[in-house]
Amino acid sequence: MKKKNHLLFFITGNTHKFDEVQTIFKNYHLNYKLKQMDLNPIEIQADSLQKVAEYKLNSVKSKIDGSFFIEDAGFFVDYPLNGFPGVYSSYVFKTIGNKNIIRLIDDFENSKAHFSAIIALYFEPEDQDLFFKGMIEGRISSKIRGTEGFGYDPVFIPKEMPRKTFGELSIDQKNKISHRGRALEKLMSFLKKHSSSF
Amino acid sequence: MKKKNHLLFFITGNTHKFDEVQTIFKNYHLNYKLKQMDLNPIEIQADSLQKVAEYKLNSVKSKIDGSFFIEDAGFFVDYPLNGFPGVYSSYVFKTIGNKNIIRLIDDFENSKAHFSAIIALYFEPEDQDLFFKGMIEGRISSKIRGTEGFGYDPVFIPKEMPRKTFGELSIDQKNKISHRGRALEKLMSFLKKHSSSF
Repeated sequence: MKKKNHLLFFITGNTHKFDEVQTIFKNYHLNYKLKQMDLNPIEIQADSLQKVAEYKLNSVKSKIDGSFFIEDAGFFVDYPLNGFPGVYSSYVFKTIGNKNIIRLIDDFENSKAHFSAIIALYFEPEDQDLFFKGMIEGRISSKIRGTEGFGYDPVFIPKEMPRKTFGELSIDQKNKISHRGRALEKLMSFLKKHSSSF
Repeated sequence: MKKKNHLLFFITGNTHKFDEVQTIFKNYHLNYKLKQMDLNPIEIQADSLQKVAEYKLNSVKSKIDGSFFIEDAGFFVDYPLNGFPGVYSSYVFKTIGNKNIIRLIDDFENSKAHFSAIIALYFEPEDQDLFFKGMIEGRISSKIRGTEGFGYDPVFIPKEMPRKTFGELSIDQKNKISHRGRALEKLMSFLKKHSSSF
């Protein structure tokens, strides 16, 4: 009997993100096919990624037939910027960008930053919303370095690789330790366990 | 016959804003009473104040009996910050504040900024949503000056009074030229014209 390939929709308008996620998915050889869908879900202003993701997930539910997930990520400069830009990372990146983030830091060695990602999955076989989180800590680079990745990658130095910014890592290297990579691993384990019901 | 005082609700959690608005309302002697109501309407992430206000208005409609309005304002540093912090002004203020806005500017004389306000009114007698806008242009002060007002007031120098920041003006002085004052004036004229149906 031929194994049937199910569809799983990743709701995003960001092709960089889709590519990162696709790279990881391919390694798992699960019995479904990942598809990009751009639906412009409603994003609320909230203090946590979880709230934004939950609202987003529900805002598109009626438009899709099947299982799907959305991903939300934020870049938080915990010290000295009190978590800015946080949930508004993409807006802040578009308006003032990395050069201005650097301008706001005096002491780079002691700066603290993290990326967080949340994946919100609507799992149709069990009519359930599920959340998978990933996080990576590090600090701010005093210079913009590297051309890989996107967004704040060139100013973020992860604890795990204290000589390089995310912008200097390949997609594969980054996926192994990144917030998104970690959240996706959890999603993958879940899907593996439930692949019979999927 | 005694004139009946109707209620008009201003949906806000910001007591500073309520006080500013109350001051203006009192000057108009209309036949209604302003009441503050804090309902935490849903704020979406959008590129324009109008979209945020529209969604906000509709998100609380079912919870109020009567006419009500919400107000939304943003501070936009058009040059050199491409409109940042814009619709996310209150979050940016809470996290990085005025001292960091100043850090991002080199040439204060040539900086360009504006405040925008939008008032979204649900007018019950005609079951209608109405929008009233106000704007004021100016530039960024190289120093934080003044203790009046709130938020970005101490770093904003209006064109109309090029020696003072909003933080150095009294509520009355500020209301005469401010974005919020201008939007409110339009609301007042509307209410005056329609006070018979109100």
